[in-house]
Amino acid sequence: MTGVIPADLIREQIKAQMAAGAQQDMIGKVNAFVDERCIPLEPKFLQGSFKALKPELDKARAEAKKRGIWAPWIPRAHGGLGLSLPEYAKVSAALGRSPIAHYALNCQAPDVGNMELLMSHGSEDQRARWLAPLVAGSIRSCFSMTEPEFAGSNPVFMETKAVRDGADYVISGHKWFTSAADGSAFAIVMAVTNPDGKPHERASQIIVPMDAKGVKLVRNIQIMGDVGDDYASHAEMRYDKVRVPITNRLGAEGAGFTLAQERLGPGRIHHCMRWIGICDRAIDLMCKQAASRMIAPGVPLGSKQAVQHMIAECRAETDAARLFVLDAAQQIEAKGAHEARVAVSAIKFHTAGVLQRVLDKALQLHGALGMTDDIPLAYWYRHERGARIYDGPDEVHKTVVARQLLKGYGLKVE
Amino acid sequence: MTGVIPADLIREQIKAQMAAGAQQDMIGKVNAFVDERCIPLEPKFLQGSFKALKPELDKARAEAKKRGIWAPWIPRAHGGLGLSLPEYAKVSAALGRSPIAHYALNCQAPDVGNMELLMSHGSEDQRARWLAPLVAGSIRSCFSMTEPEFAGSNPVFMETKAVRDGADYVISGHKWFTSAADGSAFAIVMAVTNPDGKPHERASQIIVPMDAKGVKLVRNIQIMGDVGDDYASHAEMRYDKVRVPITNRLGAEGAGFTLAQERLGPGRIHHCMRWIGICDRAIDLMCKQAASRMIAPGVPLGSKQAVQHMIAECRAETDAARLFVLDAAQQIEAKGAHEARVAVSAIKFHTAGVLQRVLDKALQLHGALGMTDDIPLAYWYRHERGARIYDGPDEVHKTVVARQLLKGYGLKVE
Amino acid sequence: MTGVIPADLIREQIKAQMAAGAQQDMIGKVNAFVDERCIPLEPKFLQGSFKALKPELDKARAEAKKRGIWAPWIPRAHGGLGLSLPEYAKVSAALGRSPIAHYALNCQAPDVGNMELLMSHGSEDQRARWLAPLVAGSIRSCFSMTEPEFAGSNPVFMETKAVRDGADYVISGHKWFTSAADGSAFAIVMAVTNPDGKPHERASQIIVPMDAKGVKLVRNIQIMGDVGDDYASHAEMRYDKVRVPITNRLGAEGAGFTLAQERLGPGRIHHCMRWIGICDRAIDLMCKQAASRMIAPGVPLGSKQAVQHMIAECRAETDAARLFVLDAAQQIEAKGAHEARVAVSAIKFHTAGVLQRVLDKALQLHGALGMTDDIPLAYWYRHERGARIYDGPDEVHKTVVARQLLKGYGLKVE
Amino acid sequence: MTGVIPADLIREQIKAQMAAGAQQDMIGKVNAFVDERCIPLEPKFLQGSFKALKPELDKARAEAKKRGIWAPWIPRAHGGLGLSLPEYAKVSAALGRSPIAHYALNCQAPDVGNMELLMSHGSEDQRARWLAPLVAGSIRSCFSMTEPEFAGSNPVFMETKAVRDGADYVISGHKWFTSAADGSAFAIVMAVTNPDGKPHERASQIIVPMDAKGVKLVRNIQIMGDVGDDYASHAEMRYDKVRVPITNRLGAEGAGFTLAQERLGPGRIHHCMRWIGICDRAIDLMCKQAASRMIAPGVPLGSKQAVQHMIAECRAETDAARLFVLDAAQQIEAKGAHEARVAVSAIKFHTAGVLQRVLDKALQLHGALGMTDDIPLAYWYRHERGARIYDGPDEVHKTVVARQLLKGYGLKVE
Repeated sequence: MTGVIPADLIREQIKAQMAAGAQQDMIGKVNAFVDERCIPLEPKFLQGSFKALKPELDKARAEAKKRGIWAPWIPRAHGGLGLSLPEYAKVSAALGRSPIAHYALNCQAPDVGNMELLMSHGSEDQRARWLAPLVAGSIRSCFSMTEPEFAGSNPVFMETKAVRDGADYVISGHKWFTSAADGSAFAIVMAVTNPDGKPHERASQIIVPMDAKGVKLVRNIQIMGDVGDDYASHAEMRYDKVRVPITNRLGAEGAGFTLAQERLGPGRIHHCMRWIGICDRAIDLMCKQAASRMIAPGVPLGSKQAVQHMIAECRAETDAARLFVLDAAQQIEAKGAHEARVAVSAIKFHTAGVLQRVLDKALQLHGALGMTDDIPLAYWYRHERGARIYDGPDEVHKTVVARQLLKGYGLKVE
Repeated sequence: MTGVIPADLIREQIKAQMAAGAQQDMIGKVNAFVDERCIPLEPKFLQGSFKALKPELDKARAEAKKRGIWAPWIPRAHGGLGLSLPEYAKVSAALGRSPIAHYALNCQAPDVGNMELLMSHGSEDQRARWLAPLVAGSIRSCFSMTEPEFAGSNPVFMETKAVRDGADYVISGHKWFTSAADGSAFAIVMAVTNPDGKPHERASQIIVPMDAKGVKLVRNIQIMGDVGDDYASHAEMRYDKVRVPITNRLGAEGAGFTLAQERLGPGRIHHCMRWIGICDRAIDLMCKQAASRMIAPGVPLGSKQAVQHMIAECRAETDAARLFVLDAAQQIEAKGAHEARVAVSAIKFHTAGVLQRVLDKALQLHGALGMTDDIPLAYWYRHERGARIYDGPDEVHKTVVARQLLKGYGLKVE
Repeated sequence: MTGVIPADLIREQIKAQMAAGAQQDMIGKVNAFVDERCIPLEPKFLQGSFKALKPELDKARAEAKKRGIWAPWIPRAHGGLGLSLPEYAKVSAALGRSPIAHYALNCQAPDVGNMELLMSHGSEDQRARWLAPLVAGSIRSCFSMTEPEFAGSNPVFMETKAVRDGADYVISGHKWFTSAADGSAFAIVMAVTNPDGKPHERASQIIVPMDAKGVKLVRNIQIMGDVGDDYASHAEMRYDKVRVPITNRLGAEGAGFTLAQERLGPGRIHHCMRWIGICDRAIDLMCKQAASRMIAPGVPLGSKQAVQHMIAECRAETDAARLFVLDAAQQIEAKGAHEARVAVSAIKFHTAGVLQRVLDKALQLHGALGMTDDIPLAYWYRHERGARIYDGPDEVHKTVVARQLLKGYGLKVE
Repeated sequence: MTGVIPADLIREQIKAQMAAGAQQDMIGKVNAFVDERCIPLEPKFLQGSFKALKPELDKARAEAKKRGIWAPWIPRAHGGLGLSLPEYAKVSAALGRSPIAHYALNCQAPDVGNMELLMSHGSEDQRARWLAPLVAGSIRSCFSMTEPEFAGSNPVFMETKAVRDGADYVISGHKWFTSAADGSAFAIVMAVTNPDGKPHERASQIIVPMDAKGVKLVRNIQIMGDVGDDYASHAEMRYDKVRVPITNRLGAEGAGFTLAQERLGPGRIHHCMRWIGICDRAIDLMCKQAASRMIAPGVPLGSKQAVQHMIAECRAETDAARLFVLDAAQQIEAKGAHEARVAVSAIKFHTAGVLQRVLDKALQLHGALGMTDDIPLAYWYRHERGARIYDGPDEVHKTVVARQLLKGYGLKVE
């Protein structure tokens, strides 16, 4: 580098500095909101139905709008705050501290992913009809991809079909783990439109209104003891000759997987940072319990070496993972989701593992209390066991990372 | 040893041989019963209330009596089959394969422990009133020891009091994790009767009918998402000046902990072998899934090395743990629960760890299906997380083992 | 079973009882020998050459003969004690407590395996020439199978050839990890004699005197910092047109792998029980250190909870593994090595894992001292890292176990 | 933040940008040097004495000076390159890839720590006599603190004394793990000068020329099989009434621990980044082996899922740990070693754990080859087992982290 100072560089750096300050401010606001409006609602969330909690959640959502923290990840043009991915990542960790906070700010999966799809690939009509109310929080949506008969780890292996008939697609198939279908206004359904295409070019993503004829929510699947309801549910679905206009397709015909992949990069950052937030909260609960619980008169739990070591191990691996995820977010920002996909696979399985170990220790430290739904640890312990499975199981992501590394050594593996 | 062959020895050995044959036969019967009468009821158990399942369970219980496998662990004199501890241990593993099988044979905790207490320390009146119907399966019972305000890992640390007033005790206190209280006929309550005694000589065990005035079931605590009901529940209890005759006490005044300890030796064998049975079933489910699930056309899940290794690791550590537990059962049989207590602590934490690792791998292998309550893995994954906590957390048992070992090296540790 | 008591059964059981007494006695003798004659030699073994230690080891060997504990695993007909495999397994654990004790009793690998091969498949001439002095301890031998260019995990993948030329084989090839070659009188060399046979029927085992022309010990390979010497060494070998009579072959032509497999069953029991003995000694060292080392004035190391937990975890998993290995030994005794091969694979990888974890904790507990060769932990830590590799790496044994299990579910995997 | 752009900020940012470019350049140079001049010397280092390698190392050192990469961590004023800690951290990772590269650039422990002590606390005379030749690489030094009779985990627990006698200290004591003493020009000895002070104010650091009367190198301790020599050694030392002038003391009397603590902050960054470099190299070796080793004709090792997963797990946890360490380096840079001490404890135990797991997997992947000293894995496997012990064992650092966290919750633990 020479001594010449390009004006652009200066401007960019100043912007970065200002953004850093603004971001701290934003995270402060989000943390306050989580503490004041989300954590107090947890007992009701943990021990009752989502529907029963809905009115209070609606108030929290209104408050979030008032405080200027609504939809942080959505560009300003579409009604959000327009944070960059690394910025939003930190917000996601702050939200992760409570199981309802993402919802309260309208950045819950799968809606946020669907918003992204609509923003990137939606026609003007599609956006007007579906994106606008989604960003406003007046409707919800779901994403219908996994099929019970086929391994989710192999997304090109599916049977749901969308057959052209005039100006329509006629969709038939069987799906499950269509999260939040209960109460959704529409689903984005992955269906085979080009059965003779290459494996990754067979399926398309199609918007299906939930009130279309032939859409059947078979059941909310009981997951880890919870049937769940409304947003907090995972449906088994049947699509029985559901007819929708071809204009309901998102992007090109056969581009379903490409779109799904695009969507997963940032989506995994969101998840991973949410998990980091869960870890932060778990450590907070551990410390509180260690400091306040007496195991004999005058002997706090935290005086035991085993307890201290559990806390320290959780703190260290959470903090290391946080930096690892943020670095992947930077990579997506800098070079795009495709170029960063190996980094994203690495953080996905790594952080899911950290999450499981942290929750396990946090629960153990709490003893019998940890098994109860009086605090959120048991909820996370059971539902976030899925973290090592959903959006690609550990085994798949590890192979992605190894395959890429080995390619650099001249070895091509499947 | 000399060449002389004592007749006693011969008789004993022949008895052992015959018992071995008989036992194989018994285990065959139990396995058949579990397969035919318990596993088919699982979906209802996993996805509905216990009360709704009760009529079918009652039929299964009747069938168990008919098949001559009822109450295997209870001495013949009291109406059971009179198996030795090592014999029953193997039966417990067979039963462990289904979450309702222990109940179907009337050897579910905490009833079986309460039966033991009544057999060993109950007066004739107590046995007539409470033991007989318990063995017959016409009533249920609970054990009320742990208190929410005090660490369960330190059992001498409690506040529930039983104060003498004439011929009565007046009991006041707050308990939780009083498992199966909902629907029980009586509780055995641990309460301080001798507040000035040495720490381990302060409490007594007292029979409290659940319909006594002042007994209040505050709530069935929501555990890992399940409020539960009837037998499948864990209650928070209040005892508000509950008055029971002093003759309701079990054993000597102040002997509460001694009795509790006695009860825990065999009880932990039962639990550990039940866990081994869970592991056996989990491996069975893994193998079925590995052999039948396709991850691509013609590519079974079981062809993946990661899957094979998970199965092998589970098989090996389950089988090692089984022998370890059976050996501890032999030690209790040979030298009594007190002498075998260190062996029992070792199997308790070791087997609980094996159970957790096996269930974790079994769930991972099943992917999304493993998260659902369509198969019993998710149920065990969440509820048997308690195995490392109930009946003494890992940390306590490890210290027991180390303390005993170090004593042999001249070091006394707390 | 009927009530009839067969006389045979009685006799057999009495024999078993007597054997049990005799065996306790034998183990007592072996333990005393290890304490008195082997452990005192450890510092010299750990810090000097094997050759320098040899004179003292020879005295210990003479003493072992005098005490009637020499060659316990070898049948009486061949000059040993004729213990059964389960009996010898316990002796092997007692010997495992010191790194030189197996040698002192002449049951060190690879000699003991070679003795088995000669006993089972050796001609009268071969036995007279090689077996007798081997059992007597007047010569040593080695086994030359693994080749540097080919993965040891795939034993049918090798290049060393033995070509018939008249009454001779002419052997050419490159081997490594020919343990104890330095100072051996002969090697048993695995070489391809039938290149066109099926993969598992290509090689034969051939006795090659080390002084034959063309046998070259290239180097003692430096393993984990030790070049080693004499018995304590692992050679790289070249066989350059080595000519030996065809009568030097062991067993049938092409039977090399079958013989190797036979030999490995009991051999793995020996290894696993040796590892159990190492674990026992490691725990002994941990307890001694915990009881005697002060970490502050008046504060013994063993008062720390982390230290207690390490000790307890080691104790539990060692004891579980011991029973697991003994059970496999019983299976080999009862139904033969072939039928028990899956059990043997399970104990092999399981016990190797236990060993590594125990040594790791034992070393950590000793701090800086654990890193030194003042005590044997560092020696075992580094050299027994090989336990997860030699005689089949973990990965191979896990696949063997899974393959067998999955076969029972109708799935054939490679 | 306001819109005003302070000129200082701009200048600072530009400097940072330029440094980033310069640093990339520096790391490129260092990597090239390691590849060209260090890795080729490894076989000799791994299989021979340090003394024998010395002439070639001296040439490499000369080359490092010529390439302008000598003593990167030492300020320019003292003859180094003056990198900041975060900058040097990255260089340390690059050097970590070969076990001799730190030495080749004169930033090996303990010399680099001693240079820091002399720069910060040395008198002008001390610097002239000891620092200058140390930075130039013409002498070596050692640090003599740990005592065999006292636990190194408790540094205030020691017996070596320095008693004033006129203008001299007379030093007597017994030390071990005085690394690199063999061939050193001087030792910095920690000795009690103020026996009646508070525990942390009793000892002082005193420069002791190795040729002083009464200094005795008892032995190079055999560590993990290596006695070692010259720089690659760890001595047991006796100081028998060694007389040195009081002016040889570094810093204030009684400030020994304060100085030691200061020194450890950056020292632990150096170590942790060196370990990251080791991990990087281990992964490189894994990939090379996976890509080139055939396990059957045409079947590369890397085609096995278990191998792929090992590689991916190593890559992920290495990269997470790297960011974690760099963040701690930034913290030291920004707020000083004292304020960053908890972060430093967290990276110390966390990274040591990562290192051990990575090396274990790398070794396993290499099979028998991994056990040999033909490649550096076995060297690191055994010697870097010390990483979890030296500079404070895991257990101590975990307690430091927990103590600090719990303080924030109102709990003070010892």
